[in-house]
Order: sequence, then C-alpha cells, then structure tokens
Amino acid sequence: MQPINIGLMGVGTVGGGTATVLKRNAEEISRRAGREIRLFMAANRELERAREVVGPDVPVVDDAMQIVNHPDVDIVVELIGGDTIAKELVLKAIENGKHVVTANKKLLAVHGNEIFARAQEKGVMVAFEAAVAGGIPIIKALREGLSANRIEWIAGIINGTSNFILTEMRDKGSSFADVLAEAQRLGYAEADPTFDIEGHDAGHKLTIMASIAFGIPMQFDKCYLEGISQLDGRDIKYAEELGYRVKLLGLTRRTDAGIELRVHPTLIPEDRLIANVNGVMNAVMAKGDAIGPTLYYGAGAGALPTASAVVADIVDVARLLTADPEHRVPHLAFQPDRLQDTPILPIDEIHSSYYLRIAAADRTGVLAEITRLLADNGISIEALIQKGADADGSAEVVILTHRVQEKQVNRAIASIEALDSVAGKVVRLRMEELNG
Amino acid sequence: MQPINIGLMGVGTVGGGTATVLKRNAEEISRRAGREIRLFMAANRELERAREVVGPDVPVVDDAMQIVNHPDVDIVVELIGGDTIAKELVLKAIENGKHVVTANKKLLAVHGNEIFARAQEKGVMVAFEAAVAGGIPIIKALREGLSANRIEWIAGIINGTSNFILTEMRDKGSSFADVLAEAQRLGYAEADPTFDIEGHDAGHKLTIMASIAFGIPMQFDKCYLEGISQLDGRDIKYAEELGYRVKLLGLTRRTDAGIELRVHPTLIPEDRLIANVNGVMNAVMAKGDAIGPTLYYGAGAGALPTASAVVADIVDVARLLTADPEHRVPHLAFQPDRLQDTPILPIDEIHSSYYLRIAAADRTGVLAEITRLLADNGISIEALIQKGADADGSAEVVILTHRVQEKQVNRAIASIEALDSVAGKVVRLRMEELNG
Repeated sequence: MQPINIGLMGVGTVGGGTATVLKRNAEEISRRAGREIRLFMAANRELERAREVVGPDVPVVDDAMQIVNHPDVDIVVELIGGDTIAKELVLKAIENGKHVVTANKKLLAVHGNEIFARAQEKGVMVAFEAAVAGGIPIIKALREGLSANRIEWIAGIINGTSNFILTEMRDKGSSFADVLAEAQRLGYAEADPTFDIEGHDAGHKLTIMASIAFGIPMQFDKCYLEGISQLDGRDIKYAEELGYRVKLLGLTRRTDAGIELRVHPTLIPEDRLIANVNGVMNAVMAKGDAIGPTLYYGAGAGALPTASAVVADIVDVARLLTADPEHRVPHLAFQPDRLQDTPILPIDEIHSSYYLRIAAADRTGVLAEITRLLADNGISIEALIQKGADADGSAEVVILTHRVQEKQVNRAIASIEALDSVAGKVVRLRMEELNG
Repeated sequence: MQPINIGLMGVGTVGGGTATVLKRNAEEISRRAGREIRLFMAANRELERAREVVGPDVPVVDDAMQIVNHPDVDIVVELIGGDTIAKELVLKAIENGKHVVTANKKLLAVHGNEIFARAQEKGVMVAFEAAVAGGIPIIKALREGLSANRIEWIAGIINGTSNFILTEMRDKGSSFADVLAEAQRLGYAEADPTFDIEGHDAGHKLTIMASIAFGIPMQFDKCYLEGISQLDGRDIKYAEELGYRVKLLGLTRRTDAGIELRVHPTLIPEDRLIANVNGVMNAVMAKGDAIGPTLYYGAGAGALPTASAVVADIVDVARLLTADPEHRVPHLAFQPDRLQDTPILPIDEIHSSYYLRIAAADRTGVLAEITRLLADNGISIEALIQKGADADGSAEVVILTHRVQEKQVNRAIASIEALDSVAGKVVRLRMEELNG
C-alpha cells in the first residue's frame, strides 16, 4: 500500500516529539498500521530549528499554508496551538479535504462545534486524542471503550502544573507562591502561569470530555473555572487531618436538572486512587452505568507522551482513510444529528459537599450560632474540628458538610460572615467522594 | 440504516448483563453507533431462564448452532465459555462469514492463533475486549491507544478473586484458607477455585495482552503460573513492614533475550498506584517507550462491567461491518504477516528482585554464611531484617535482593538450604518496582 504522507505544522516540543516517535518507531508503527507512515513535510517559523529536528530528508517551509494546500499531504498534524492561525489552517485543511490530527484543546473547546460541522460536511476526520491528558488514551476510552454505557460523571486531574504545585505544597508544607517559583525554575510552569493555575487549561480539556461523554456541543463559555492561586496551605493541612487530599479537579456530571461542568480545587478521600496521583501526572476517572468507576492514568504532557497520542491518531486516521465516513467513530462520540442540548448548570445550582473554614471568636455560643445557621439553610454536618485559639482570642472552625446545593451553602456563608463573632471571609472548598 | 442483528450464545451472568445493557441503553447506544443494535436471537441450554432474561420478543433456542447458521445474524456473541463447544461454534460462525464477539479468554489464549487465522481468511472480525479485565478497555488501549509505542512491559492485577483474597489477608491478618472460605461464601470465589487462585485465569489474560503488545502469537503453554494458595500471611506482613504490598501479578516484559511471561505473587512498593488496587478490582499497567507508564483501572468481572466490554465490541464491529478488512485494527494489533516469533523465556532465565525468608538458627555467624552465599552467586542485598528468635532458638531472616537472574537466586537458595544452621525451605517471592 501507498505510504501515508504527514504534513507537520509546528515543530516545537510536541512537534519535535512527533517527528522523533515517527522515526524511532517506524518499524513498530508500520507493523501495526500495515503501511508506512511518512513525515512528508514540516512547517515552522524557525526553519533552522525545524530542520535540525526532522533531518535532511524532510522539506521544511515557514508558511504552514503550503502544507494545507499541498496535494500529496494526506494528514495534516496541527501542533501550533492557539486559536487564530491554527483555526485558519485547520479550516482550510478541512476545506481541502484533508484529515486533521490536532493536540489543540483551546481550538476545539472554543471553536470545536464549527470545526466538526465543517469536517462532517467534507467527510474528513479531525482526531484529537492529544488534546486531553497527553498520551493517556482517554478520548478513545470515552468514545469507544465505554460506548455501551450511559456515562454518569467524569473527574480528572488534567493539569500537570497545578498537580505538581499541590503535591509540593502538601509534601513540603510550602506556600503556593514558593512552589510556583520552584515549578517555574524546573520548567513545569510557564513564566505566565495563569492558563494552568487558574483552571483554563483544565477547563478546555473538561469541555471536550463532557461533550463526548454526554453527546452535547462544546460549551467552554459555560465551564466554571476556579484555580489554585488562592489556596492556603493551611486548608491542605486541615484536609489531610480529616483524611482528604486537595486536587485541582475537572468535574462534569449528568444530573436530572442538567450538566455540571466545573474546575476547582477539590477535597477527595485519601483512599481513592485518584487522590494519590502526584506530581505532574494526570488521571481521569469515568463512571459508566454498566462498568462502574474506571480510572486512566499516565503522563499528561511532555514531548514524547503527547506525541504518543498524536501518532496513535495518525494510525487511526490512516486506517480509515478510504472507509466510508458513516462507519467512523463520530467526532463527538455521538452521531452529529443525535447531539442533545442538555443545559449546563450555573455554578450555584450544582450539588456538592463542602469544606468550610471559619475564623471565629473563641467564646461560648459561637459554634452554636454557626451550626444553627447551617441547619437553617438545610445543611447537615459530617465533621467539625475546632483548632486551638490564637493569641488574639480567635479560633478556627473547620466543617465538612453533607451534599447540598451550592446556593444554599453560599446563603449560609453570607449569614455566618455577618456574625459579630466571625472575622473575615469563610474559606469554602468543594469536596467529592468519587465513589460511584 | 439497517439494524444490526445480534445472536447471543449463552445467557448466564455475562449474557444476561449483555441483554440488559443492550436494552437499557438502546437509545444511548444508537446515538453513538448511528444504527439500532438489536438482540435478534438467543441460545441457552435452559430455555426458561433465557426467556426470563431476554423477554418475549427475542426467540430463544437451545442449540446455539441455529444462531451460527442463521442467515440474518450479523454478529455472533459467544458467552458460553470453555474451549470445546465454544470453539466449534466460533469456528463455524467464522466459516459462515459472521463476525464474532467473545469474552472467552481460555479459548483465545489456547486456540487464538487458529481462530484468528481463520477469521483473517474469511475477512471477519473476532473482537475480545471482554476477555481481559472485564469492562476496562485495555485491549483497545494496547492495540490502538498505544499504537505509537514500542511497549516495554505490562503488569496487571487481572484476577479479582485472588486480589480480594490478598486484600483480606492483609487487612484482617487472616490465613489464606479462612479468606478463601469467606470469598466462596460471598460468591467471589468458585466452589473449585483452582482456576482463579492458581493463576490460570490470569495467565490466559496475560497471554492475550502479551500477544497484542509485542506482536507475537498466543503461547499460553509457555506462560509461567504460580498462584497464591501457598502464600503465608507472615510474608504479607513482613513485606508491609518493608514498604511493599503483595499482589498476584501477571507480568510480561520484552528483554533482549526474549519475552518474560509470568503470573505469580509479587511484592510491589506501596506508593505505586497499582499496589493500592484492592478487593475484586482490576488494574493493568502498560509501559510504552513514548508514553511512559500508564494505568487502567476498573471492575474486572461481573455481569454489567463485562457486558460493557461485550457491547463496546459490538458497536466497534457494527461500525466496520461494511468496511474493507484491510482497514481494520488487526486482531493481534500487528498485521498477521508482521507477527514475530520472539522466544518466551523459561522462568529461570527471567530477571527480578527477590524477597527471601529464611528460618535460621539464632547464633553468631549464620547471617555471615547466608550473605556470603548470596555474594558468591552475584546477588547483592537491598535490605535485610532479622525477626526475633522463637522459643526454639530459631530466628527469621528476611532479605530483599537487587535484580538478578532467577537461576542465580535458585542456586543461592539451594546452598542456603544446605546449611546446617538453616531449617526447612527458603520462602522466595518475586519483587517488581514497576517504575519505568
């Protein structure tokens, strides 16, 4: 059979890893795919750097449009990132009838509906395993592996930078700021870390997973984002005393009222496997009605792990190049005409358990006032610990609640904060059992 | 599009679960598959029981050959088990040009080469996700998700009965016999538990995974099997003191000399995720050269979890019914003409670290004799603990070794057992780091 010609757009970290894997494992890959998969052409702004990576046999251009318009390119691999030039290139590739493999989570979470609609019209595939959790084959698991299930929820540690920071904060008792500086020094965090630590990156990935799990359009604008930059080391410590770990979790759940779609620091019981996923590693739990809870773990970023997913997508696309579009796995797991417009719930309508930390005056009756306000708002208490009084006569009360709607907790917190005996804001973290 | 007609052979636990999932999630499944998947006919020895499960609309026969020979059946689902009647039915179905979905690990591990060769000739698919680790989509992950990788090793907790027993032995400090009795009472172990506790079941599953990971034929007869029935609770306790958990692990590894293929109780460092997979749950680790270590976790048995995999296979096969055979994922992940005959290593040629427990006289010089014999055989020691002397003047010495070839350890053990100061047999368990 003819070799498959790959046009590689973007020869940075992941692009370089993709070139490496295609070359190093060429024999293994062709034993699987039944045909040669060949790096045919590469595009990169910096020509020299790209030439060093892809070697002398692969032509390198500085205008990626040349790849998109080249008649002999079978599959366009978009590893440029962002949603300006990358979007233009992907849409043009689709228009030209080319299949696309991309690792670009932002592009899909924000413009996916448009891109998949165009791909559907033109009968081409857009594959995106590398866009979520690096090399872990989670898109394949959700779209194909769990296709018998009504998926109930997905919860993932899907941002390595944040997980590294949280792991270090716990292990070393360091502050967020100190660990962030260390992560930047080690190359685990960008100079501007906002995208990672404020939950945007996790939100893009979660949006994509929710779409294929529930058969809904991509709706990143409705995804609730709360990062870890405001997290106080004390709360990690108190959580641990209560038997919990704090993780930045992307969580999406189907409920009768609609779909919860949210990224935030979350307390998880320490005996769950996912609570023990540390450092830069990623893990995704998916609960299906037939299979029950499952977990998928591995490297969520990095040159070779992400390239592993890019090349797996290339092999998948290569296998189906000449097959009828109707026999392919639908882009969003469900047939395009069978997507549903189930509403995404605003954050104050979600249900969760909560961790509350309250700075209260250390005097008789304060606890009674606080617990009465919780009870008045229909909130029952699972655990309560009081930490010793400070020199200034204030104590800290830590409360774990049972499941309740978020707006009720917010109402209770407003009342608690209004008490004379309570100082400052109440710290509120969400808590998930993840046990079924 | 036409509905897909399923012929279900065997309406026991998994067959019943399959009928349930197909019915309960019919809407969800057709939204994904783009066509209706219909239980067309069922076969079961006990007609009444099958009728209760599949309902009045599905014809039930007591001779499964009627399904295999029915012109309107598109996909035959074999859930009878064993390798006599099931083999005959599967081969006949293939001869009749029907696609097959099976959960039958023994059939594939023992007769897979013949079955896949016939399927290849006839251009039909034989799908078997449910044969390994229940609902966990591990076959899909290995065959497709990791297709870019040179897979280096796979290690799995793939027998729920054994894992339940080991978990209970550790948690409660009970003996193997007591826990086995409890497992039988709870329905987690069969009346004759040999198949599970002596590693046969895990060996079948491991054989299948090794085949698709490395592109080698199925060779169950070369799989080393050692179960948990001889395991002493003391060794679980000592292992724990040293920071390890004991798991029945199926392990296959590619080395320069050949492929290791072995099932045995194994010490694993307690901070590995897989060391914390407890009860009847399953987990498989796979290490690829690009992606690094990955882990897949979920229910490895049970009606609905296994049905989840059966139905996922049905959806996969339904999608590719009319596609060219050459575009499908090869049965054994690699193209049939690209399989390799890499040798499977005999057990005494594998490399591992070891846990040794030695009953030695509690007197000066014994430790020196033992450690000298280890050194003479090229074995270096990672840790050594001596447990207090018994009333009879004997003590127990527990040693963890560094990596070494098994035959060297066996030689050293023979010399140690020959010492006057050593009583009885040396207990030897294998130990794996599973960290890369």
